[in-house]
Amino acid sequence: MEAGPVQETLAALRLVDHHCHGVTAADLDREGFESLITEGGVWPGISSFDSPVGVAVRRHCAPLLDLPRHASAEEYLARRAELGGREVNRRFLAAAGTDVFCVDTGYAPDRLTTPRELAEVAGGAAYEVVRLENVAEAVAAKGVEPDAYADVFRAAARDAVRRPGVVAVKSVAAYRTGFDLDPARPSNPEVTEAARRWLARGGRLDDPVLVRHLLWTAVDLGLPLQLHTGFGDSDIRMHRVDPSLLTDWLHLTSGTIPVLLLHCWPYQRQAAYLATVFEQVYLDVGLTLHYVGPARARAILEEALEITPFRKLLYSSDAYGVAEFYQLGALAFRHGLAGLLQDRVDADELSLPDALRISRWMGRDNACRVYGLPLSHGEVRA
Amino acid sequence: MEAGPVQETLAALRLVDHHCHGVTAADLDREGFESLITEGGVWPGISSFDSPVGVAVRRHCAPLLDLPRHASAEEYLARRAELGGREVNRRFLAAAGTDVFCVDTGYAPDRLTTPRELAEVAGGAAYEVVRLENVAEAVAAKGVEPDAYADVFRAAARDAVRRPGVVAVKSVAAYRTGFDLDPARPSNPEVTEAARRWLARGGRLDDPVLVRHLLWTAVDLGLPLQLHTGFGDSDIRMHRVDPSLLTDWLHLTSGTIPVLLLHCWPYQRQAAYLATVFEQVYLDVGLTLHYVGPARARAILEEALEITPFRKLLYSSDAYGVAEFYQLGALAFRHGLAGLLQDRVDADELSLPDALRISRWMGRDNACRVYGLPLSHGEVRA
Amino acid sequence: MEAGPVQETLAALRLVDHHCHGVTAADLDREGFESLITEGGVWPGISSFDSPVGVAVRRHCAPLLDLPRHASAEEYLARRAELGGREVNRRFLAAAGTDVFCVDTGYAPDRLTTPRELAEVAGGAAYEVVRLENVAEAVAAKGVEPDAYADVFRAAARDAVRRPGVVAVKSVAAYRTGFDLDPARPSNPEVTEAARRWLARGGRLDDPVLVRHLLWTAVDLGLPLQLHTGFGDSDIRMHRVDPSLLTDWLHLTSGTIPVLLLHCWPYQRQAAYLATVFEQVYLDVGLTLHYVGPARARAILEEALEITPFRKLLYSSDAYGVAEFYQLGALAFRHGLAGLLQDRVDADELSLPDALRISRWMGRDNACRVYGLPLSHGEVRA
Repeated sequence: MEAGPVQETLAALRLVDHHCHGVTAADLDREGFESLITEGGVWPGISSFDSPVGVAVRRHCAPLLDLPRHASAEEYLARRAELGGREVNRRFLAAAGTDVFCVDTGYAPDRLTTPRELAEVAGGAAYEVVRLENVAEAVAAKGVEPDAYADVFRAAARDAVRRPGVVAVKSVAAYRTGFDLDPARPSNPEVTEAARRWLARGGRLDDPVLVRHLLWTAVDLGLPLQLHTGFGDSDIRMHRVDPSLLTDWLHLTSGTIPVLLLHCWPYQRQAAYLATVFEQVYLDVGLTLHYVGPARARAILEEALEITPFRKLLYSSDAYGVAEFYQLGALAFRHGLAGLLQDRVDADELSLPDALRISRWMGRDNACRVYGLPLSHGEVRA
Repeated sequence: MEAGPVQETLAALRLVDHHCHGVTAADLDREGFESLITEGGVWPGISSFDSPVGVAVRRHCAPLLDLPRHASAEEYLARRAELGGREVNRRFLAAAGTDVFCVDTGYAPDRLTTPRELAEVAGGAAYEVVRLENVAEAVAAKGVEPDAYADVFRAAARDAVRRPGVVAVKSVAAYRTGFDLDPARPSNPEVTEAARRWLARGGRLDDPVLVRHLLWTAVDLGLPLQLHTGFGDSDIRMHRVDPSLLTDWLHLTSGTIPVLLLHCWPYQRQAAYLATVFEQVYLDVGLTLHYVGPARARAILEEALEITPFRKLLYSSDAYGVAEFYQLGALAFRHGLAGLLQDRVDADELSLPDALRISRWMGRDNACRVYGLPLSHGEVRA
Repeated sequence: MEAGPVQETLAALRLVDHHCHGVTAADLDREGFESLITEGGVWPGISSFDSPVGVAVRRHCAPLLDLPRHASAEEYLARRAELGGREVNRRFLAAAGTDVFCVDTGYAPDRLTTPRELAEVAGGAAYEVVRLENVAEAVAAKGVEPDAYADVFRAAARDAVRRPGVVAVKSVAAYRTGFDLDPARPSNPEVTEAARRWLARGGRLDDPVLVRHLLWTAVDLGLPLQLHTGFGDSDIRMHRVDPSLLTDWLHLTSGTIPVLLLHCWPYQRQAAYLATVFEQVYLDVGLTLHYVGPARARAILEEALEITPFRKLLYSSDAYGVAEFYQLGALAFRHGLAGLLQDRVDADELSLPDALRISRWMGRDNACRVYGLPLSHGEVRA
């Protein structure tokens, strides 16, 4: 892509990554790395590198490790090991051009950097996103009476979001029940009864009444709520995570908290519809962008932006585990959005000042607005 | 876009707009105008102009008000007010290049032009589409015994469609129950019982039995039935307005009336499937085209036409309220369809005579065929 | 499309068509031909030629009958009749450049060639795919006690797949119940009770318990299972054939048999998701490719390959009845995949060796791997 003014603006823009995870501090062997660059598993005969994201890593990440473009997987992993995780992380996080990270700290089967560590490596600021399922499960692990569950969970959630740097909460209801839920706030007796069943049974929070209760507790907390929708690992039932299933709940909670639909693919149009008709709804296509890679990121953004008000799309990487994804997500976003906007400018369908404004909004300002972050974050540096 | 022969043919073709509404006769203030160019609301901090349709208005409508392309929202609204609603309507309707309007007269929270007034301003012909929910609600408002409801509604519907100029009926079942309905014709006792409940409760017609009864009454009337599907305001539950949910009903009503699936986005492929396998099914992507704007209209048409027989797609604007949408819908349709067809001609995937024939069919003749309109409508004028 | 190295490689590559049907041996009249090039019917006033597939036949098949490109339907059918079915079949099968055909022998309302006859005409090899619904219905037709049904069906299926040349089984559960089924293996008493009902009633196998039982019998057989998903005729309920509805069943059968999702449109993204997160899942976009034609095949492949590991997409034509579809399917696949890959090479998003490897995998090697076919099939011929 030749560099027009939109490309230049987006290349220089310091991004706000409104949803990501930490990066592993460990050195990774081949299996470890391959397992982190797929939403599937590590399968005999099918390398994770033989996929769109694997091709994108070899194309766009290899040069940052001083390798030629399209280096082989073997060369890539050897060089990665040679440099060591610490240096690798430093290089990719620097290349991401991201000033602010809102870090979901609730999923870490691997040992990951804390928000503070991530910010230090990247030379930016980090905020925290509290995963509410974790709070509920910690309450259960500590022990609670069923009829006290609602109060204890709410108090624990309030404590969690009062910690410095917390800007949002998140729910993975998508993974637990999907969105085909009764939208109404459950009554106290319903919650007690459901808590009784769940606490007796143990395991992760996947009771439909308690998931509903968790979503309504998010409303009470008053912070923006991030919701996983669409694409994820095999734990997802794709047909139950279409965000349009949330419509009744969005009506009931209208006028309360901002709701941020994450990932969305392949339901980016449904998410765009919700962001268009509900004042409180926003969307991103994080995770999707690095999995499809720069070759296809623009097509996804085209669909996500078909009808969407320009204030309603945010940037996120949803990077997890490998530092490559902070850079790849940012690159795919910049490349895709710039291509889309520059072509519209070139076709005289959009003015250049509008294109530049939209770039800054989507890459930075929309997130600052929703989360109340200082707009000085993400400014172009002299 | 450079003007090839397909572009020229479509630019000269007088369109038949098989589904639209009236235009407001009133002068509009900023809030009034912004509320009419979104399917969402007027929200603090998020102008309706900051969206794909807003950009399209500033790009493609501003020049018709003697403004430069990409004029600001403020300039646009000031000039619009200066010219006055009457002159604005005249300009945009003339620019639409549309000879025939089939006007859904059933939704008018705003004071809108009648079909006749619309036709006069545009210098074309207007026909009427009767919204059956309105007929049913008028029957209820007038007072009716539950066991007489079916007969009185049918008689009222027959009277309504006998009025001169009525060419079709329409249902907004999508807004009331969605399409996940028992497809069978309800029995008389079922209708009476449902009518008893509804008449006691009042409000709009949203009882599933009565909605089914309404759809089957449409079959009895014998006129083409327009069905809202897909995109609309927040009153829609998107997952319940996928037109493929109508499949069982389409089997049961096969061989009776033409069924026209309106809007369809994001289910244009599902609608195309139905139009491909059911003789009586047709589709359009009205409403969608001006909301996505010329920059994206072609992509929507590409999907809508992937497998669709060329006799099965019709043009509509679904313009409502602001005259801009007659022009924008027509422009997006012409631009998108011409780009798609011309590129296929240029790639030698389609012959030029075929491309011209398809243009005329989709822009005009298919609607004349379905509604029995004289083919002299919409001819190229000397 | 100019011929780059990817185009050249794909043009020379002998394909493995992992799912197709036989071709009619009969000479076809206009109605006969038109009924075979649509998933709809033959309707007055709407010729099957006036559709994307009809245009593709006139553009890409006519020259093989010594006609000019874009010959009229009348010329096409006259020349076809003149040459006779035998010669027509020979020409199109030769032009398909396909070495291996895996033939679903279970659907033949028309008299079709056997796999052996097909292979002879094409000068390639043929394998057989056993449709399990046919096996079950033959068991019922022969007479069986309800409590013996499960065993007799299993034994008949084992016999059927032991025949030489059988490489897979297929289910059309999509046509019978859709995929919104209880995923668990039904118990023996449940099967007996369901068999009692079905055997008393007769007709095709569409009992949900027996369809589940059939899918689990496929697991016991141990061969790859082909599943119709998405696009088909009006017998499909599109919203019930979204392959993501199979997720629970795929979890339960993980580690057993390969599952090949056929056709998929408009759910190619959902199918891609499943192929990405389940080791045993593969997909194709057969049937879709010739119905959308070369003008749109690439767009479908772009979506099907957005996140998909390169080992997971296979080629199929799903040709049925007319020999044109073997050629058109192959042409649309080669054209679409080559365009996609060559553009990525040209944009330096993909290396040329990778593009050539992906071409060979998707056109040939992936099928050989899944079905255990000799890799010598489909090699470039000197």
